[in-house]
Amino acid sequence: MKIAIAQINPTVGDLTGNAERILSMAQQAADLGADLLLTPELSLCGYPPRDLLMRPSFIQQMQQQVMALAKALPPQLLVLVGLAVENKEATSKGEKPIFNSMALLQLGQIREIFHKRLLPTYDVFDEDRYFESGTQASSFIYSVQGESGYESVLKSVHIGVTICEDLWNSESFWGKRTYPINPTQELVAKGVDLVINLSASPFVCGKQRLREDMIAHEAAQYQCPIVYVNQVGGNDDLIFDGQSVAFNRTGKIVSRASAFTTDLQLVEFSPDAHDLQPAEIVPLLAPADAELWAALVLGVKDYAHKCGFTQAVIGLSGGIDSALVSAIAAQALGSDNVLGILMPSPYSSAHSISDAEQLAHHLGITTQTIPIGPLMSGYDTTLADLFAGTESGVTEENLQSRIRGNLLMAVSNKFGHLLLTTGNKSEMAVGYCTLYGDMNGGLAVIADVPKTRVYSLCRWLNRDGEVIPNHILTKPPSAELKPDQVDQDSLPNYDILDDILERLVQQQQSADDMIAAGHSPAVVAQVIRLVTRAEFKRRQAPPVLKVTDRAFGMGWRMPIASHWSLAVSEPSALPAADVKKLTVPRVDRLETIFTS
Amino acid sequence: MKIAIAQINPTVGDLTGNAERILSMAQQAADLGADLLLTPELSLCGYPPRDLLMRPSFIQQMQQQVMALAKALPPQLLVLVGLAVENKEATSKGEKPIFNSMALLQLGQIREIFHKRLLPTYDVFDEDRYFESGTQASSFIYSVQGESGYESVLKSVHIGVTICEDLWNSESFWGKRTYPINPTQELVAKGVDLVINLSASPFVCGKQRLREDMIAHEAAQYQCPIVYVNQVGGNDDLIFDGQSVAFNRTGKIVSRASAFTTDLQLVEFSPDAHDLQPAEIVPLLAPADAELWAALVLGVKDYAHKCGFTQAVIGLSGGIDSALVSAIAAQALGSDNVLGILMPSPYSSAHSISDAEQLAHHLGITTQTIPIGPLMSGYDTTLADLFAGTESGVTEENLQSRIRGNLLMAVSNKFGHLLLTTGNKSEMAVGYCTLYGDMNGGLAVIADVPKTRVYSLCRWLNRDGEVIPNHILTKPPSAELKPDQVDQDSLPNYDILDDILERLVQQQQSADDMIAAGHSPAVVAQVIRLVTRAEFKRRQAPPVLKVTDRAFGMGWRMPIASHWSLAVSEPSALPAADVKKLTVPRVDRLETIFTS
Repeated sequence: MKIAIAQINPTVGDLTGNAERILSMAQQAADLGADLLLTPELSLCGYPPRDLLMRPSFIQQMQQQVMALAKALPPQLLVLVGLAVENKEATSKGEKPIFNSMALLQLGQIREIFHKRLLPTYDVFDEDRYFESGTQASSFIYSVQGESGYESVLKSVHIGVTICEDLWNSESFWGKRTYPINPTQELVAKGVDLVINLSASPFVCGKQRLREDMIAHEAAQYQCPIVYVNQVGGNDDLIFDGQSVAFNRTGKIVSRASAFTTDLQLVEFSPDAHDLQPAEIVPLLAPADAELWAALVLGVKDYAHKCGFTQAVIGLSGGIDSALVSAIAAQALGSDNVLGILMPSPYSSAHSISDAEQLAHHLGITTQTIPIGPLMSGYDTTLADLFAGTESGVTEENLQSRIRGNLLMAVSNKFGHLLLTTGNKSEMAVGYCTLYGDMNGGLAVIADVPKTRVYSLCRWLNRDGEVIPNHILTKPPSAELKPDQVDQDSLPNYDILDDILERLVQQQQSADDMIAAGHSPAVVAQVIRLVTRAEFKRRQAPPVLKVTDRAFGMGWRMPIASHWSLAVSEPSALPAADVKKLTVPRVDRLETIFTS
Repeated sequence: MKIAIAQINPTVGDLTGNAERILSMAQQAADLGADLLLTPELSLCGYPPRDLLMRPSFIQQMQQQVMALAKALPPQLLVLVGLAVENKEATSKGEKPIFNSMALLQLGQIREIFHKRLLPTYDVFDEDRYFESGTQASSFIYSVQGESGYESVLKSVHIGVTICEDLWNSESFWGKRTYPINPTQELVAKGVDLVINLSASPFVCGKQRLREDMIAHEAAQYQCPIVYVNQVGGNDDLIFDGQSVAFNRTGKIVSRASAFTTDLQLVEFSPDAHDLQPAEIVPLLAPADAELWAALVLGVKDYAHKCGFTQAVIGLSGGIDSALVSAIAAQALGSDNVLGILMPSPYSSAHSISDAEQLAHHLGITTQTIPIGPLMSGYDTTLADLFAGTESGVTEENLQSRIRGNLLMAVSNKFGHLLLTTGNKSEMAVGYCTLYGDMNGGLAVIADVPKTRVYSLCRWLNRDGEVIPNHILTKPPSAELKPDQVDQDSLPNYDILDDILERLVQQQQSADDMIAAGHSPAVVAQVIRLVTRAEFKRRQAPPVLKVTDRAFGMGWRMPIASHWSLAVSEPSALPAADVKKLTVPRVDRLETIFTS
């Protein structure tokens, strides 16, 4: 039995286009003699469809589109297509109105429908918002011609169907249970020959190894082969890496599809051997920086193209962040399609210009230079009366950033280029960036990449020759918003900052934990204060390409007008006799600080 | 038995401050002879705490804080306090790590803990993200001294405890079930004498009447009195209106607390009459505009104060939106604390200045005038080479808005004023606003109020004399970004636009539904296209004060890079023989259009 893995790149909501993608794969698979075609979770509407799922007409259109697709498919091929289907008992049972399902299509008809059982509702996932859980361990039987002896013997393969999260509740692998039930275990108990898993699993650095370890563990534990199909492509903030894999019943890998690109792979299940046969194994991307690079390139490419852009514009400061984003954009869209804008001020160093020009030369991208000195004077003059007697400071630094932000948006509006934002995760965390200034843009490309990782990625990029000019890598980072300014005037050393941020943002550590790990209490308190204060800026940031398990954006939902400090770890005793006067909870002003 | 209803205004995360608020209410209640004090859902941490709940140290601090509170409370008073508590069986059972609970405090100890059972996961609510559902119908028994005859007889009152959503699954009231179980029904079956409901239910226009109808229905249906306690105050985008109520067993209201302010009310349950006794009933706010006004005033006041601001700055265009927001801010923060900035351009009409000045005079707020003509010329000069040969258009209009946005942020940064955004819901829906321009600000005050409602609210405000100058109400709305421009050059008439938006955004209607209701297919298609295109702008908008059942913000989660149109209602047939070449899904550019 030949199983084709259709690792497609759907566009969210594009039912017709996605049906065409599936159909094209099905025709290729049929030509290759496949019996069954697997597509990713919600392959008909793309993942994540978010609140489009709340429109009854969208659900109806999916029903109609899947029927049209069924009739167009090659008749001999069984096809599993992901879609949302109505829960007809929702209002009588008090359940959610739809299921996250897979339709098994055969001979122009829907033969069966299987529902996802474990619904992720954490991080960027909101599945309990939309879906009801399926209650059945889903499987179907496929009949094949056997190969033993002289006679053609009809054999059957019993296939268990799981959807994404259904596979992710292995108590023996994780050392804990995440959901009350384990769909894989139930299928094995039912006696299936093979488990398939149809996924839309977003990229996170290092996740593929974890996935493969977990799937290998499950296959070996249950002595049951597993075929895992993943979506590929960028959809807003999420990047799906593909890398669909299959493991045989000993837990050995037999197939791996390409990373970060559409792919079609074939694996064969032998009823006689009762196992999957070895097939093509595309090597993993290595080192880790190569993987991260490929993810960011795909994220930019798909966001731009799926929004209808072919060209991008980027502000080139001569610093490392804009250098990296330019390199990513040049790879994603082609050098000819990237425009770099240099916007020097009187505080810009000579090297900021020359470094940016050298970078543009290496990348082969066009640049324009627009000095901002006259506009800075213009704002000073305009605000002179109102600001008379005040000292120049953060306000004036922010204005420089906002003048640049305005100029970049003017270029974007005038020529139809997508403005890419260049801030990194460390800046975004502590608010070392200007809202409506350097935060402007349609997509925040590296806002989930910490500053120290920006450096390592650039060094990797230079492995065979200088792409990012070496001087950009070696000079001290600076926003150049006042004379002789460097980032470390305002922030801890980036090695220290990034370690604290990793503990605070990813690991949910308390101040006590971080101090116990050796960090200075004063620095920990400063970082926590900055991160808390910057919440209002992050709320207005563009979508951030997610590459870690905790990115700012859809998966980071923090209150703004709150008053809580990790730094205070002891409870406050309340004197019953003398209730204190209520105090205004937070004195931090909603001020914007400057940035590179 | 005297029951005190503590309608408090907590700040999210401020455990110590909230404990003090509860303690202060408890001392007042004890002085009034109360036996039991009720506080809102999650009263110790404030609602909604969002991802603060993911920090183990935050949950631990809550445990410590509630113990400190228990020891400080008046000894004779039973107190119910809302907090999150650890689910100790989470990893063994595969459940969520915490519960949304109420602790019953007595004599310095936690006597019992009750868990919320129905967890809202829709609109702005994400409770399945954090909480495990409770499995028990929760109740406790309070013993009271009886009043019958000569002897003092010990009687007991059996009290059922529900938390917010637990009360909202009345099949007989709604005509459908929303959850599989009905906690109220289970408590009645258990024989409770009284049901209490501890809530944090956000304001939506008209919701109080619905709540009261529903609670009255439940009380009468089960012949069981119900006491409903609501949080009050603004927390980011959500405004909690208070208006705690109690209904007796015939479904008649016996108590109502104030709207939009902290309050303490007392109701008495008579074990002999087996019912609640009549108490104070604060009248409902009427008409609807009075209610909406009070909500927006509280939303601004609490957002500002809880973020540490005492003063606000607003761009005054002479139009109706900025006029209304200025009036709200003056009421919320005091006229002395509101600064209006007039920023006329060469395209500004004379009346835009005089109308704004007259408004400021009526409100008693200070103004400053900063003409933007020189900066417009500055940008033109700066961009002259790059834009040579192009026609002036949307880019230049956006620049005017962005110059104003920069100036307002400069004032905000320099003087520490909170910048309030003035766009209405109709604009925000169709993207008739400039990102990084007039969308700038810490809070979008009226971005959930449609334009037609802005007019009605202003007319109500003028009921006893001119507050909003009449000319602002009667002149055609205009962005004044080019000569003789009016909104209706680009948009349908607001009556038509708002009706279509109501159907599209609130009611999830399809294009066919809207056309069947009498709207022009071309206008419907235009509005759908504009709303879809504006998604990237809304993603970067400030928090929007929510006053309808579907506001842009936390409860509106739409993809940006998607390709789907409500306007195409027929499915696309897929020709099996001739698969079309895949097309780029959307050609709309990420361009920003102008605004008032």
